[in-house]
Amino acid sequence: MTTNARHESDDEGDAGPGTRERIVVATSRLMQRQGYSGTGVKQIAAEAAATLGSVYHFFPGGKKELAVAAIRHGEREFAEELARCLAAAEDPADGIAACARSLAGGMRESDWADGCPVASTALGVTGSVPDIRRAADEAFTHWRSLVAERLREHGFAGDDARELAYTVISTLEGAEMAAQVARDEAPLRIAGAHLARLVGLYAAAPRS
Amino acid sequence: MTTNARHESDDEGDAGPGTRERIVVATSRLMQRQGYSGTGVKQIAAEAAATLGSVYHFFPGGKKELAVAAIRHGEREFAEELARCLAAAEDPADGIAACARSLAGGMRESDWADGCPVASTALGVTGSVPDIRRAADEAFTHWRSLVAERLREHGFAGDDARELAYTVISTLEGAEMAAQVARDEAPLRIAGAHLARLVGLYAAAPRS
Repeated sequence: MTTNARHESDDEGDAGPGTRERIVVATSRLMQRQGYSGTGVKQIAAEAAATLGSVYHFFPGGKKELAVAAIRHGEREFAEELARCLAAAEDPADGIAACARSLAGGMRESDWADGCPVASTALGVTGSVPDIRRAADEAFTHWRSLVAERLREHGFAGDDARELAYTVISTLEGAEMAAQVARDEAPLRIAGAHLARLVGLYAAAPRS
Repeated sequence: MTTNARHESDDEGDAGPGTRERIVVATSRLMQRQGYSGTGVKQIAAEAAATLGSVYHFFPGGKKELAVAAIRHGEREFAEELARCLAAAEDPADGIAACARSLAGGMRESDWADGCPVASTALGVTGSVPDIRRAADEAFTHWRSLVAERLREHGFAGDDARELAYTVISTLEGAEMAAQVARDEAPLRIAGAHLARLVGLYAAAPRS
């Protein structure tokens, strides 16, 4: 569910395999840096090396439909990274701290341009475009479910796991935004350490 | 510094006292709901019941200068609320949880339309408008300083206070965004409880 989403739906139209995916990736990248209102369909077509006709063929709903697809793309990208970090660590607290470091590294590599594509796309239109608000909520919900599932696997009580997952994802989101405006990894590095400490408080049994 | 910022600079021009403040508040409210790119100077003038000439009189730098003023306005508004919550509680952990509840209440009152005005204005233009990025960073820095100061007053070690302040503000920011897209207080309620627990871990001495 978190991966392999790229193989489908690329050969459905007249624009050839890969075009739909290129359009979605271009939309995600542009809205990540410019937001929904700052991004135009013509710019998306140019960035994706696609015709406007091709963009509207795949996305007859225009920019709103493009934004929802871009949010789902960003959701899958971070879900893959989150699942990878959580699976690679013996202790979920370490996995969460690793995820914060991974976010910080990615932002530094982009010279602090690439924050959360879901937040950048949705903020500013959550009140006016319900489909975008819902897609962003579904992204956060999915990310939380990955964290909660990992915590439950490690013996955390169901309610603790569910609530900790809220704070893990909220804190990573907020720290990513703070890191972006500060052009500094500190907010994410500190968030990772604090989240590991918080999660450790709720662990079912001490792990050596 | 966190309050009384509204008395100055309103009688400097031809548009009469209060006009500049009305323009700033209108910009803040519009960008809070629509973001920077989704808001136009004409709309700001209309919302503020001011002429375009008056807007450019007070803000010759146009939309970018308006956005910076709006971010500073949002910064002061939340700084006042944060200071009030922190001052009203005996224990800083309780004050932080109260602040999360206050944010949740405000968002519910606005039918989930009014998220963080600083984040909504800055996200999407942090890479392209350095003045806006810096203003947002200054806002987060100021809010963190209020939290850190309160923690130090309560005997927290300097480094602990400084780092906790990062996570308090990051978590509140992220939880506010999650609450907005979910139209649900849960992310903020949970964040407040977890932050109180985290802060409690670092307290210099147990407080009964």
